[in-house]
Amino acid sequence: MPVFYNPSARLSRDITILALRAFFNDKKFFFVDLLAGTGVRGIRIALEAGGVGIVNDVDPRAFDFMVENIKLNKLESELAPFNMEANALGNLLTFTGVFVDYVDIDPYGSPIPYIESSLKPLGKKALIGVSATDKGPLACVNKDKTLKRYWLDCADVDFKSELGLRLLTYNIALRASAMNYTITPVLYLSKAHYYRVFYVAERKNPFNVISKCRGYIWYCPTTLERGFKYDRDKEFDCSDGNRPLLIGPLWICPIGDENFARRLLAVLEKTLFLQRREVLKYVEYAQKEFSVNEPFIRLDLLCRKIRADMPNMELLVERLEELGFKASRTHLDPRGLKTNAPLKIVESTILELSGK
Amino acid sequence: MPVFYNPSARLSRDITILALRAFFNDKKFFFVDLLAGTGVRGIRIALEAGGVGIVNDVDPRAFDFMVENIKLNKLESELAPFNMEANALGNLLTFTGVFVDYVDIDPYGSPIPYIESSLKPLGKKALIGVSATDKGPLACVNKDKTLKRYWLDCADVDFKSELGLRLLTYNIALRASAMNYTITPVLYLSKAHYYRVFYVAERKNPFNVISKCRGYIWYCPTTLERGFKYDRDKEFDCSDGNRPLLIGPLWICPIGDENFARRLLAVLEKTLFLQRREVLKYVEYAQKEFSVNEPFIRLDLLCRKIRADMPNMELLVERLEELGFKASRTHLDPRGLKTNAPLKIVESTILELSGK
Repeated sequence: MPVFYNPSARLSRDITILALRAFFNDKKFFFVDLLAGTGVRGIRIALEAGGVGIVNDVDPRAFDFMVENIKLNKLESELAPFNMEANALGNLLTFTGVFVDYVDIDPYGSPIPYIESSLKPLGKKALIGVSATDKGPLACVNKDKTLKRYWLDCADVDFKSELGLRLLTYNIALRASAMNYTITPVLYLSKAHYYRVFYVAERKNPFNVISKCRGYIWYCPTTLERGFKYDRDKEFDCSDGNRPLLIGPLWICPIGDENFARRLLAVLEKTLFLQRREVLKYVEYAQKEFSVNEPFIRLDLLCRKIRADMPNMELLVERLEELGFKASRTHLDPRGLKTNAPLKIVESTILELSGK
Repeated sequence: MPVFYNPSARLSRDITILALRAFFNDKKFFFVDLLAGTGVRGIRIALEAGGVGIVNDVDPRAFDFMVENIKLNKLESELAPFNMEANALGNLLTFTGVFVDYVDIDPYGSPIPYIESSLKPLGKKALIGVSATDKGPLACVNKDKTLKRYWLDCADVDFKSELGLRLLTYNIALRASAMNYTITPVLYLSKAHYYRVFYVAERKNPFNVISKCRGYIWYCPTTLERGFKYDRDKEFDCSDGNRPLLIGPLWICPIGDENFARRLLAVLEKTLFLQRREVLKYVEYAQKEFSVNEPFIRLDLLCRKIRADMPNMELLVERLEELGFKASRTHLDPRGLKTNAPLKIVESTILELSGK
């Protein structure tokens, strides 16, 4: 195909196909790829997931490639190429009366300028897939930009990449809420320079979801304790007597759905052409890590704090599960542990495993 | 003119003309009225403020009237009628290369769905005029909607209508900030069922403004003490020992600009056809009340608390000024007093005036 091809985005596209097959159960669906570039993703959605829809890019050169690629793949009756400003298209579609089942937003940089217009044309219940490459502002690396773009006074934590996903999700949920949409996160993926997230978007009163999922993360930089908190006002101390940092408001509900991850695995088992090592590994992780909501702990930092060697991660997870806790590695960080076990238990388990 | 005419919106339109003449100093400017209805406002902007631009409405019946009204007023070379979805138009204008000097958003209900697309086509420094008729959610009358649409856990205060303006301003400032725009409020108007606000919007780093203008209002329902607060964490008590309510984050900088109000008065003095009683009275109030940032106090409630009769408002303002404080009545509430005097001083002054 005569197209610009971004190899690090292949995982994102593979997971998109998997998510669409899992969500739509191989039924036909109508989609819009608002920022389609040369159309690779849209063409794959048509060929591999049974989507029919609109592929759009404002760049006329990208549009020419897109038209060419649709022809090469004989998808003229499945894909309609558009050459419009993305937000204008999203808003105009509202008036067609055709409800969109899936919207894809894959921008360079932040997806924030496209959120409202991607929600507008959706049906009563739909899926949205969103990429973000502004990991710096999201994960609190550029604090000024975090405040400007995402409205959070952030703080340095050991679960940076998870913080970014929670902030992105919260911001999209707020914008959706103002339009009377509820979003439910089903899947998150972080790789290299990008995040990729999927939400179920429903036209229904978002009050309960916002009330329940808006909250704070408290975090003790010295002891590495952390947790969720609804209410900013009830105060308490870290175990070393310091005040915890309070970060928020942001999304404190799960950012992935373990049932959805299980469906991904089921689809993957039937879908030979997607069974690449990288995809298999991600789905295996997702299944497990989506079951634990607590922000991951950087074990290297925790081990330094308690002067222990890094444990074998698989053994640690196993041992915590034997003790009755949820525990999982996370694809977000090779040193990360997600668990609902109290930090004291994690520490004593590490020490036990290291034979101290 | 064969148009639907809303008499209670006349003040809003008069003030719009005044604001445009004051802001653009009678120079020609290019404007877009995204939700123009039958075009009354746009036609007045062309005839009375020297604007040339686009008047748009998605309703084809409104559009027909608009075309007719432009013809009747011989404004074919000043006004281009459009019949498009408002957000789509705002976004498409971004690509014309023509910078817009003024955007008007006058929706039924909340202006929130139009904020992003109204900012997109603006030049480096421009003016936006925004109406909101969803006073219930803004002023915390429908608390569920306040959370859903404006993301605030609000509380009942005695300065409801000012709370609504601060929340609206904050929300617009956040949305602007995410697009790297800074807004500066210059004028607010509240009448009957609507708010009308004007902001200078500039393409420049909003970090400092957001950092400075985002904050909390603390409020003691029993003692009626109130004030601004940057930091949520420093706690203190009301004078009766209760904890104050903490409302925010919202906009704690001024929501009107006293210099701009002075310019309004200067323009009004030269503009005979706008010198209606209602306009004169508003501008007189604005000049004074924009100089006091503190949320207004409902004097009837304060007098009940201290068991005093309602004082003559003019005398009270005068006396507080003699004592070296800022003080003003407000058009937001006939019982409202804006002042930077401590509540104890206001109380003793009321008692003094009532001869107790």
